[in-house]
This record gives sequence, C-alpha cells and structure tokens, in this order.
Amino acid sequence: MSAFAPRPVPVSLIGLGGVGKAILSQLLSPPLNSRFNLILIANSRQSISLPLPGGQITPTNYLPILEQHGTPLDIQSILSLLSPSETSGAGIFIDSTGSDLIPSIYPQILGMGINIVTPNKKGTSSALSLYNDIKSKTYPNTPTLYYGESTVGAGLPILSSLKDLVETGDEIYKIEGVFSGTLSYIFNEFSKVEGGDVKFSEVVKVAKDKGYTEPDPRDDLSGTDVARKLTILSRLIPTSPALPEGYASVPTESLVPQVLSNASTKEEYLERLAEGDEYFDKVREEARKEGKVVRYVGVIDLKEGKVECKLGKYPTDHAFATALKGSDNIISFTTKRYSARPLIIQGAGAGADVTAMGVTSDLLKIHERLTTRF
Amino acid sequence: MSAFAPRPVPVSLIGLGGVGKAILSQLLSPPLNSRFNLILIANSRQSISLPLPGGQITPTNYLPILEQHGTPLDIQSILSLLSPSETSGAGIFIDSTGSDLIPSIYPQILGMGINIVTPNKKGTSSALSLYNDIKSKTYPNTPTLYYGESTVGAGLPILSSLKDLVETGDEIYKIEGVFSGTLSYIFNEFSKVEGGDVKFSEVVKVAKDKGYTEPDPRDDLSGTDVARKLTILSRLIPTSPALPEGYASVPTESLVPQVLSNASTKEEYLERLAEGDEYFDKVREEARKEGKVVRYVGVIDLKEGKVECKLGKYPTDHAFATALKGSDNIISFTTKRYSARPLIIQGAGAGADVTAMGVTSDLLKIHERLTTRF
Repeated sequence: MSAFAPRPVPVSLIGLGGVGKAILSQLLSPPLNSRFNLILIANSRQSISLPLPGGQITPTNYLPILEQHGTPLDIQSILSLLSPSETSGAGIFIDSTGSDLIPSIYPQILGMGINIVTPNKKGTSSALSLYNDIKSKTYPNTPTLYYGESTVGAGLPILSSLKDLVETGDEIYKIEGVFSGTLSYIFNEFSKVEGGDVKFSEVVKVAKDKGYTEPDPRDDLSGTDVARKLTILSRLIPTSPALPEGYASVPTESLVPQVLSNASTKEEYLERLAEGDEYFDKVREEARKEGKVVRYVGVIDLKEGKVECKLGKYPTDHAFATALKGSDNIISFTTKRYSARPLIIQGAGAGADVTAMGVTSDLLKIHERLTTRF
Repeated sequence: MSAFAPRPVPVSLIGLGGVGKAILSQLLSPPLNSRFNLILIANSRQSISLPLPGGQITPTNYLPILEQHGTPLDIQSILSLLSPSETSGAGIFIDSTGSDLIPSIYPQILGMGINIVTPNKKGTSSALSLYNDIKSKTYPNTPTLYYGESTVGAGLPILSSLKDLVETGDEIYKIEGVFSGTLSYIFNEFSKVEGGDVKFSEVVKVAKDKGYTEPDPRDDLSGTDVARKLTILSRLIPTSPALPEGYASVPTESLVPQVLSNASTKEEYLERLAEGDEYFDKVREEARKEGKVVRYVGVIDLKEGKVECKLGKYPTDHAFATALKGSDNIISFTTKRYSARPLIIQGAGAGADVTAMGVTSDLLKIHERLTTRF
C-alpha cells in the first residue's frame, strides 16, 4: 500500500487579537502544523503573504514582521490575496476579527471555492439576506464549507450537536441556556442557591475588575451577545421563527435598568451603577420567595414559536442553579429523543484558548473532508 | 453556477436488532434518505441486495422480504458482497451487530477502501493488535474513515469532543464519568442525595423489570461494558496506558459481591440477590458518613497513569450527585484548557433511537467528507 500523505491545506488568518493569536499559536504547533500551510496573516491594518523569503513566522515574531514588511489591508486587497490563482488552490479563510465588514464579503469568498471558518458571530447573526447568501454558497448546496462552531459556546460542541440532532431527523422542542460567560458569572455570584445579599452593582464592578466584562459592561448587560448566539442556533432549526433582522429581531431584556438608561457615557454609567440595585434586589427577592434563583438565559421554544433573551427564575435543584459554576456556559436541548431529560453541555464558553480550539477543530474537520475522497 | 448534486453514498447495514432497526428507519426517512443509497441489509442469518427488483424496502416490510428472498450470510459472503466492484463504488459499511467476528474483518473491509461506521464496541475495545490494524488502515494514515461515535454515550458527543481536544493540542488531565445507563439508574436510586434505605437487591430487580438491564444483570454489574468504553476513550489519548488486552487490561471492580460469586446460573443469582445487600449497605453507609453518595464510575487519570472502573464516592453537591438523574450518562473532561472547571456532557447514553443517531450523524459526516473536494 502506498503511503497516504495529503498535502497541507492552505490557510489565511485575518484578525490577530487575543483569539487570533491563540489560533496562530495552535496552527504553528503539533499536531496541527503538519496539516496546514499558513499562506497569509493580517491584522486590521496590514497583511503579509507567507512563507517569508528569509525566515519562519512564530507566535512571538509575527507582529514586528507584519509592521515592517506588511502591506496595507482593505477589502479589495483581501479578495485578490485570497484568489485561488494567487494561493495555488482553494483553502480555508479564517476571519478572527469582530468586524461587520468582512462577513459582508463571505459570499464572494465562498463563491471562489474558499472554505470559511470563523469565531465572528456577525455573518450568521445579522440580516437574514446575508445568512441566506452564505447558505446558498455552502454545503450541501455547493461543495464549499462554512464552519462557525466557536460562535456559540467557544470550544463547547453546541452547534455541531444541534446540527447532528436536526440532520438525523430529531425534533427540537426547546433549547435553553446560559450563553454568556460574563452574565453567568454575574448571576452565579448575585443569586446563589445558599442565599446572600451582595449588591448587583458590586458584582458588576468585580466582574469588570477581573476582566470578565467588555470595557463598557453595558455591551454585556444589553443581552445583544446572547441574542446573536440564539439567532445562530435558531437558524439551524427548520421550524424556527424567521428573525429577518437577525439578533435585532430577538426580544431581548436589557439588564441596564430604566433608571440608568439616561447615562450618556460609560464613566457616568459605572459611577451611577448602584442606582440600579433596588431593581435587582427586588428581582432576586421575588425569586427567593418562590425558592428560586435568577439567571440570564436564552430560550428557543419551538412549541411556543418563541426566541427570547430574558431573566429567568429556576428552582434551586435545577441544573442552571446547582450545576452551573463560575463563568461557565450551560446549554440544554430538549428534543423528541431527549425528552425525558435534556442533553446538557457545560463548560467554559469564553476565553482565547477555548475559542481558538473551536476554530482549529473546525479546521481539522475541513482537513479531513478535503483530503478524503469518494 | 451549476447545481451541486452529489450522488447518494452507498451504504450496507448488517445487524437488524433494536439499534439496527432504528438506523434503518432513520436512513429511510428525510432528511437522510436523499443522501444515502442502501445497497445491502442483513441480519445474523441472511442478507439481501437492494434495490429490490419489484419494490421498496421499508422499516416494516424488510423482515419478511429478508426471510423470503435473502441469501445465507457468512464472513466470506460479506466480504464479496461489499467488494467495490459489486457495489459500484466504495461506500460505508455499518456494523450494528454485537458480534466479535465482524470486527475481526474490519481491517479487510477498510483495506478495500470502504468506510466503517459502527455502534459495536468490540473492534476498538479488544486486543491492541486489532485496534492498531484498524488505525493503520484509516485516516489520517489512509483516506478511508472509521467512525464509532455511538460506542460511548450513544448519541452524546463524547468521542468527537475528546478527539477535538486531543487533536487541537489540548492536554487531557482526567476523564471521569458515569458511562452505563443501567448503573446510573441503579446508583441514582440506591444512593440518593436526600438519603433513603432501599435495598440494592430491590433496585436491581426494579431495573430488570423496567428492561434497563441485560437479561442477566451480571453482564451490567460486572463493569465490563464500562471497561470497554474506557478502553475506547483511553486509546484516543496519546499519553494513556497501553491496555494490550483492551477492556481486559482495565482494573474493573465487579458489583457481583463475593458472597454471590458462586451462583452458577442467572436464576440462582437473581434468587439469592438479597445476600449481597449487607455489603452494599455498608458501602452506602460509609459514604454517607463522609457526606457523600456512591456512583459506579470510569476514570482515566493521566497524571496518575491509571484507567479503572470502580465504585466512587462523591460529595452531595458534585455534578455526579445532584445533576445526574434517571439513567443518564455524565462525562467530565478536565484538561489544560478546561482546568478551572471541566467540560461536562450529560444525557441519555443508551436506547435505540439515540444510539442510531450516533450512527447516522457519523454517516452524515462521511457524506460531507466524500462529497466535498480539495
């Protein structure tokens, strides 16, 4: 038998923030480095084609190299750099930016036969027209692949599990979960099974100091990130509501209370944070009277035809109360097959390493697809 | 753009017990039926090639058709029936038997370029020589695929998650779980967080009456099934102990107590079951004094270099005590990336429909691989 040695799959990586750096590091290390061939890296300003004429890229030297030898980046240059004629074959494009702009050219990139892997939620959680455009240009409608496992739950197998359920003919009844690591931490601290009277404003401040929140905590507390994740999940279910405007079509309870909605700057909001405490004290007290805790959840209820992000109350022996810890995500799928008890997946749902892992495991799946034959 | 319409992938299915029937039913229904072309079905006695000259196979008519028109089955006939020259192209072979014999010819089948999907644990949990033979004939060593997602946890994404962790360069510290639905049920009933004094023999009898156990409950209580699952998981981890004899190399605590080990028949064992109660009462009481419950677990501890099946004691706020319910499986992965808190997957880990789903989701992954191109 002749030895089977598929040639490495060409990969381009745009976006070199925390997650992008972790992807780069995993791609340049065993066992991944033998399966992929990095042909382009770029941050938001500059790009460089690889291999370098006189050296190797490493997770520590890429930045000065990019600054010295890179060429300025714009949308048009991305498209021409990725063109299969330039890269000796269609490979994989990784969008590790948080940009709105790059997802808008996914259909063009896919149309060139280039596969896409991304942790960027914007492409599949925005307008339905863009989503449909991406869908029409990917498997099973074309032989080109789009994978975004890390857009929900980082490295946790959330999207792949939902796809498996749907595509093998199961019927989804309900998906319910704590999808935000930040909001998981905040409510696990604020509303504990064993009680406690810590103020909401204090928990938010601690979360901010620990680096668990966005620079402006309102970006987490708005619920938008959760609404984007629900949109992505919901669109994988054929019987789900249409959500024409994506995340903006999902009814989303904001955790910026009425009394603070007029804070014009982040600084003013943070300074006045305690003004919201009365509201949250009341919410917690109401739950406590029912023997429950408060959690910020995303719910897709197919029987009710509803997709929503809201504060929910859960009994103290519910998995969202007892099993959920720290800043973990927890997601439960109730289906025809998993009807007596749901399928539950739990673990860290944010962080550079686990998000990068969601990306690199998608890369490996594409590698396997591209190097095996019918 | 021309329409992309990959031809259906040819599939052969051997084994038509509970799981085999559920696979057949999923394969013949949307959305799977458009992607696969069933070319052969067989039970332990007879096989029949498809399509039938004068009709369609359905989940309800296959048995009389097989009995009337089938040809007797033996190993040699399987090999010649599967030969790609007979089936107009290498497709997928599903082994849904519990046989030892069929796994012994996996290397020959893979050698013909035929991909294998199976819920049969025997191939990958027996002697290391067979395992290595299977491995050397599959991706990434050849372009042929072997998938056995449903051999551990049925439809739960256990093996795929472990593969993702290992192949993206994470370091596995420990895998710990309740891997048997039967033993999950028995200990969830016998050793509850809230206490209770039900006898072990009574719980086993109820489990048997509900159909949760094998006809001879000792087949569950021996721990062998758990040892097989641990072997399969362990072999995916490069730093794991070698287990030359497969499951037989795993130290496995039997739940057939000393005093009952001389029962010669199933009937005698069941009749004398209560003689073991004193032993289990003591085990439960000891745990209770430490504020713990008893669970039958499989553990792969890479730091200690140990793989074992045993009765473990867990605090009442541990996920194995509070979150685990009914006959669910629960598996936790502690790794370098998931070190603060483990990645946890929980849900029904047995039953025909969810096991069949593990098989059909593997089929879909192969379909995607076989119909996309580099």
